[in-house]
Amino acid sequence: MIKFDCRNADKAVIGDENGLDLAAEFDIWGEKVRNIIVDLNKSKDIPGSGLQWMNLGYSQETAWYVKEYAALVKNRFENLLILGIGGSALGGMAVCHALLRPYWNYLSKEERNGYPRIFFLDNVDPDSTVSLLSHLDLKKTLVNVITKSGDTTEIMAQYMIIKNMLEKELGDDYRKNIVATTDMRSGILRQISEQEGYKTFVVPDDVGGRYSVFSAVGLLPFALTGIDIDEVSNGIKDMDLALKNTDIRQNIAAQNALIHHLLDTKKGKHISVMMPYSSRLKYISDWYTQLWAESLGKQYNLEGNIVFNGQTPLKALGATDQHSVLQLFNEGPNDKIINFIRVKEFDNTLEIPKIFEYTGIGYLGGKSINQLIDAEADSTKVTLTDNKRPNVTITIDKIDAYNIGQLLYMFEVQTAISASLYNINGFNQPGVEQSKNYVYALMGRAGYEDSAQNLHSKLSLV
Amino acid sequence: MIKFDCRNADKAVIGDENGLDLAAEFDIWGEKVRNIIVDLNKSKDIPGSGLQWMNLGYSQETAWYVKEYAALVKNRFENLLILGIGGSALGGMAVCHALLRPYWNYLSKEERNGYPRIFFLDNVDPDSTVSLLSHLDLKKTLVNVITKSGDTTEIMAQYMIIKNMLEKELGDDYRKNIVATTDMRSGILRQISEQEGYKTFVVPDDVGGRYSVFSAVGLLPFALTGIDIDEVSNGIKDMDLALKNTDIRQNIAAQNALIHHLLDTKKGKHISVMMPYSSRLKYISDWYTQLWAESLGKQYNLEGNIVFNGQTPLKALGATDQHSVLQLFNEGPNDKIINFIRVKEFDNTLEIPKIFEYTGIGYLGGKSINQLIDAEADSTKVTLTDNKRPNVTITIDKIDAYNIGQLLYMFEVQTAISASLYNINGFNQPGVEQSKNYVYALMGRAGYEDSAQNLHSKLSLV
Repeated sequence: MIKFDCRNADKAVIGDENGLDLAAEFDIWGEKVRNIIVDLNKSKDIPGSGLQWMNLGYSQETAWYVKEYAALVKNRFENLLILGIGGSALGGMAVCHALLRPYWNYLSKEERNGYPRIFFLDNVDPDSTVSLLSHLDLKKTLVNVITKSGDTTEIMAQYMIIKNMLEKELGDDYRKNIVATTDMRSGILRQISEQEGYKTFVVPDDVGGRYSVFSAVGLLPFALTGIDIDEVSNGIKDMDLALKNTDIRQNIAAQNALIHHLLDTKKGKHISVMMPYSSRLKYISDWYTQLWAESLGKQYNLEGNIVFNGQTPLKALGATDQHSVLQLFNEGPNDKIINFIRVKEFDNTLEIPKIFEYTGIGYLGGKSINQLIDAEADSTKVTLTDNKRPNVTITIDKIDAYNIGQLLYMFEVQTAISASLYNINGFNQPGVEQSKNYVYALMGRAGYEDSAQNLHSKLSLV
Repeated sequence: MIKFDCRNADKAVIGDENGLDLAAEFDIWGEKVRNIIVDLNKSKDIPGSGLQWMNLGYSQETAWYVKEYAALVKNRFENLLILGIGGSALGGMAVCHALLRPYWNYLSKEERNGYPRIFFLDNVDPDSTVSLLSHLDLKKTLVNVITKSGDTTEIMAQYMIIKNMLEKELGDDYRKNIVATTDMRSGILRQISEQEGYKTFVVPDDVGGRYSVFSAVGLLPFALTGIDIDEVSNGIKDMDLALKNTDIRQNIAAQNALIHHLLDTKKGKHISVMMPYSSRLKYISDWYTQLWAESLGKQYNLEGNIVFNGQTPLKALGATDQHSVLQLFNEGPNDKIINFIRVKEFDNTLEIPKIFEYTGIGYLGGKSINQLIDAEADSTKVTLTDNKRPNVTITIDKIDAYNIGQLLYMFEVQTAISASLYNINGFNQPGVEQSKNYVYALMGRAGYEDSAQNLHSKLSLV
């Protein structure tokens, strides 16, 4: 199981100004947290609760359909192209980057065991889109278009372009190269998929994009690239069981939620840094960024009062970013809580040879890169603690499907508990609607003419 | 030339609580800023000023040597492997990612005009290092190891491993596959390079890592991958000329420095977001992150008083991250200043076909992806402004060597002016020394035994 160490957030270690009296806080908040955990687990089957994602680890049916399709298309495609953005891309990216062998796309088909290379087209950048599409042999490419509503402008635009290219290259057969993940019943992509006759998977009701990684949104790309989704589910289920514990002293998601909440509201730590010490875990920070920012960044609380809530998540990568942001973390404003993610055992061990013994780097010879990255992480942790910067450490045994399932699910539960602690709705995103409407207006969608006029006058001003 | 629009940071647009009276502030700060600009340009030739980077655009000799070597090795290597971290990697990454055709490493040798693929090994992650090294044909790989001191543990460890592998594969000829960029006279890598007989380039004195992108640190990777470094220099020189203007009303680097300074110190905008609307410019945010964080994140000011200074830089990518952090930007705490980077003309135009006209996305047909990314950027800008979130827009005509030279140099000058406004040293990084010493201690370097003992006792506690 994942280990969680929060001693460096305690005032006994970093002092009263920046640290918490954790034992006392666990006492004070124990009852409140207990109720939140009970509530979460009671509400997760209620439509509209936003909590259906808590059931995803148990959805054997989805896993079965996903695996069936993955087996069917195995060896048929050289590339898997994901058309998704935000929650439809970040989970897939995070997990595939962690679990596929690094530099996956550079490996030969044999080294990939027949599984495809994977590309995420998650922007509407003309230059990179043109370049990618001219590189990919579309005949050998499976396109997974992912949007619940079919209203996501960026994704639907990309899809329209690629659908046309596919049809030109493949004729009527192009349908076999498209698989859609979308709403079960309604929406534009559901409508098109049925009309066109695509294979489809479902984004379940009541699962927001940023909590959808363990629905078909994520499971399909995982299975298509050979990731063991049953092991992912096992990780989720074991973590879910552990996080059902209503005693905050036994519940690491609740602990980290409370620590973040108190450090933010009482100690001015308005930034939550996510810093894994592993290149493979790099995009887990990107996924966490959306989860934390979109869930907790809210203007109103549940009573409708203006609160302008939300810690800002910050991505960092160890050891690399010690050479970028560590100076600021150590000496700048003490306004951050740093989450380290550590890996107990890497898949590989890499020895540093005993050469150049006559020089100042001779001491490295005979050690391993593994020791070095651990030394970097330990040193950074101790230095930040010396400087009274609160930090917590999450340790996973190794980077595999089971542990990654655990890790992401833990962060999801932590986020849900946090939303309750802040007394805000953690499952909507009203603050991006206006911007979407403006895009519709600028692109000439019917019904948005007034918005367009309003906008054009603003654009000439600002 | 680059355009800079700061109207959305003005109180006339976003109100008094979050905006500045720019006309008045330019009056008030005009003299101070004038003196800073005069000082910078006077001091840049003084050893120890930390300002030698201001001369790099004029160093014809470096450019000449770099081009000579690049011509010599052209077509000889399939891969270029950069061993660098922090300032020795981020500039190269930012510029190569912007200027090489997107998905460069996937292109054929002909599409790359004979120039090599490029890889940056900027971490000591065992799994990704093993995977990359097993993929690369080292015989066809040119390794550029970059560290001024030769004391950078991560890079020297990687170098020792790869040097041994190269020697095994190539025998004595392995030397031709290594080129070192390091101090002119001293340091471990200089010592080794001379002993081993490597081709070397120089990290000039008085140029810190984060300001080194236009020295051989960056120019060599640029030239080796076919980037026109003369055009980069032309961009720098034109921008340098423009930024010599001591009138803040005519100096965009000074304007953005002052805006950031005042928003940080007077309006509580403690986070500086860098958000280009172009996938090609994505890593410019990473480069800016180090520049801003390491330069301005300082415990002491120039008088030695404790200030805990420093805005936190935050990376975001448009339009992608509208689906990640925009909710927080719009509704969360109003604690950010957002820098948009816009591209006037992309290299490619990509039309959206007129299909599915019977559905809700029919309106997209006949438009282009280019229009869409512009609409996304405009919408986000207007929404943030509606919500009184200060934002500035930097617009470049197109993504080419000339404009990228301008853009990065502008940020460097902005950072140097900011350091003066904050009255701190923008050119050192004392806050990472302790952590480096701890790494030496943990890895058993001679002379760090006391530190090791101290550290081990702390590690068992924390």
